[in-house]
Amino acid sequence: KTMLSLVSKINQKIIVLASASPRRVELLRNLGLKFEVIPSQFAENLDKSSRTPAQYVMDTARCKALDVHQHHLEADVIIAADTVVVANEQILEKPANEEDAFQMLSALSGQVHHVYTGVAILYKHQAENGEGKIDSIKVDVWNEKTEVEFDQLSADVIRAYIATREPLDKAGSYGIQGIGGCLIRRINGDYFNVVGFPVNSFSNHIVENSQFFN
Amino acid sequence: KTMLSLVSKINQKIIVLASASPRRVELLRNLGLKFEVIPSQFAENLDKSSRTPAQYVMDTARCKALDVHQHHLEADVIIAADTVVVANEQILEKPANEEDAFQMLSALSGQVHHVYTGVAILYKHQAENGEGKIDSIKVDVWNEKTEVEFDQLSADVIRAYIATREPLDKAGSYGIQGIGGCLIRRINGDYFNVVGFPVNSFSNHIVENSQFFN
Repeated sequence: KTMLSLVSKINQKIIVLASASPRRVELLRNLGLKFEVIPSQFAENLDKSSRTPAQYVMDTARCKALDVHQHHLEADVIIAADTVVVANEQILEKPANEEDAFQMLSALSGQVHHVYTGVAILYKHQAENGEGKIDSIKVDVWNEKTEVEFDQLSADVIRAYIATREPLDKAGSYGIQGIGGCLIRRINGDYFNVVGFPVNSFSNHIVENSQFFN
Repeated sequence: KTMLSLVSKINQKIIVLASASPRRVELLRNLGLKFEVIPSQFAENLDKSSRTPAQYVMDTARCKALDVHQHHLEADVIIAADTVVVANEQILEKPANEEDAFQMLSALSGQVHHVYTGVAILYKHQAENGEGKIDSIKVDVWNEKTEVEFDQLSADVIRAYIATREPLDKAGSYGIQGIGGCLIRRINGDYFNVVGFPVNSFSNHIVENSQFFN
């Protein structure tokens, strides 16, 4: 069983992507998947102080998938994800404004940080409960971590980058797939995880759960 | 000086990209550069046995840039690049056919290999020779190396991937930016180097040579 050979079977199911991120849409379309985009309404307000970044993104991804499941019981498979940037043990969100972006990029300059993406795949299936078949769900959750090292950035470089407006809607105030890519010295791990969706581990998890596509 | 702040000055020059690769065109456009695409006619037949992979890609990139320079003396800046995939000290080229692609992907399966891109930037400038100004050139050449680790690929996965036809026009028989991305466990280094052009080191080299844009 391979992702590529499964795609046509998967596309016979009702697949929902619980994320409005155009980057995630593009990465999943690249794999050949057909799906509906239904952003979750989950507030993304889980407590960060009591969770590691890995736990935080996994819990958030699961909550997003469950939220969409509750409102769209017709969906056979729901894919949700959450990505955060972690520097000096601090989770960096989207910047509030240009000044905030400047602070974040100054903190990332010349340093190594980590990007965590949590993924949840919710599979609807029929289970036996002794009296017959009932609807059930399985939620497969994991996280992927990638190391990212920024160039030393002068204040001028940071200001010029913010002027492109690319940082303003991105967690950690940068986008690796855009102009931000020229500020990054190297990564260690899955590149697509930094973009927002770990396609390699996703493919492996789908193949491991191929029984849901029979 | 930054790449971003230099872009408008650079775009006042005649810039030529000596490569027909649509991936290189896209990466350079992403940086905001405006340029003409004039593929080099250089035969890419340098001796591999007497060169390390790093020397091979740098020499090939320089020859490509010089070839375009000789036929287009009007160009102010010429950018050339060459990318190879190196596994077990062997340079992997584009596959000759599907069987060849199968052999290459089998060799890469579960292993770490390296991708080398050599880049040459040729700058035309005016130099003093005692009697006055004469046309001169500077060629800045370097290479970038990225480590890539493939998943363990079954024969089925390899066959399914070849059936997408994506491998057939790619050095090493894979494209990281396409479906091939889901076969790659991790990389260490510049992702864009694997796509075919190291945008981070390119930006730094351009900034170091900013005197040519005055």
